[in-house]
Amino acid sequence: MKKTTIGPKSYLYPMPVVLVGANVGGKPNYMTLAYCGIAQMRPPMILCTLGRTHYTNAGIKENRTFSVNIPSADMVIPVDYCGLVSGEKQDKSSVFTTFYGQLETAPMVEECPVNIECRLRDVLDYEGTNELFLGDIVEVHVSDACLDIKGMPDVKKIDPLLFSQPDNNYWKLGELLAPAWRVGREMASKEE
Amino acid sequence: MKKTTIGPKSYLYPMPVVLVGANVGGKPNYMTLAYCGIAQMRPPMILCTLGRTHYTNAGIKENRTFSVNIPSADMVIPVDYCGLVSGEKQDKSSVFTTFYGQLETAPMVEECPVNIECRLRDVLDYEGTNELFLGDIVEVHVSDACLDIKGMPDVKKIDPLLFSQPDNNYWKLGELLAPAWRVGREMASKEE
Repeated sequence: MKKTTIGPKSYLYPMPVVLVGANVGGKPNYMTLAYCGIAQMRPPMILCTLGRTHYTNAGIKENRTFSVNIPSADMVIPVDYCGLVSGEKQDKSSVFTTFYGQLETAPMVEECPVNIECRLRDVLDYEGTNELFLGDIVEVHVSDACLDIKGMPDVKKIDPLLFSQPDNNYWKLGELLAPAWRVGREMASKEE
Repeated sequence: MKKTTIGPKSYLYPMPVVLVGANVGGKPNYMTLAYCGIAQMRPPMILCTLGRTHYTNAGIKENRTFSVNIPSADMVIPVDYCGLVSGEKQDKSSVFTTFYGQLETAPMVEECPVNIECRLRDVLDYEGTNELFLGDIVEVHVSDACLDIKGMPDVKKIDPLLFSQPDNNYWKLGELLAPAWRVGREMASKEE
């Protein structure tokens, strides 16, 4: 299989699209982010990597709380808007309906099917373009319309947005392929 | 919009599915991972969060190199197999064709359309179930068949795997929705 090297790039396929919420100057602000990943299972932690010049960073540091909101595909226009426009220049507090949870200072987007409420654990600085915000997940809020029969989030109902680079496109979730920790079992048993 | 709290969970929608490669005891080993995200744009960094008991961890620490390989959907069976079986019990060195790049000790999966070669920057330990491996991306290798007309990775050709919890399913990438930093422009101009 012939390979080509394209240099050190920050691409991952695919990336999630989330809205990071923080109070800045006492007002809710939301920014769009694709550099986000689960950082620990128990206790649950999440990493959000923000450009160091963003308006949101000071708000997270001040309150030591933030939220990670999973938008659905039908929210693509306001989601893209929140990635185009800085809260420093335009007040984004009324783009969505804000609600607060147990942390009281982590604004969350009611329209988003899933809201992850976080307490800031650490800000890591590797002296590059970004600051790395590591949060302890203290609660997950799910819109009732996006729950499955067991009362857990249903990814098909959530209908999340995906992102790819360097083409810079939003994609939808596709079809179900296979159950995890199941489809490889036959191969595992053959090896025994 | 009525919401239900489901407690602090390590769910993100969706998660990528990657194969983390490392030499362990001098042999290539691959493990399947969904806790992975870009951690910095420039210099590019990536986070891979591994259960602390995994076989791979010692290999990454020993060589201070690892790889993140993006499998395509048609690799779902061997990918799931690598998540089911520990390299401690079964030799996974011949599940895929291994190649090495400039770091020499980060084994990569030839069959995967994208291979991210990493030098270990930091191992973070928050005393939970996981260890957090932060890597500097030193090179990205792409299968020629998955390049677009500009010589960059084409996510449609890559055909990546996605993962969701708690249902534990693999999904395919869906349809193109909209261009990023474009579809929200009209909304931005109205606000001015």
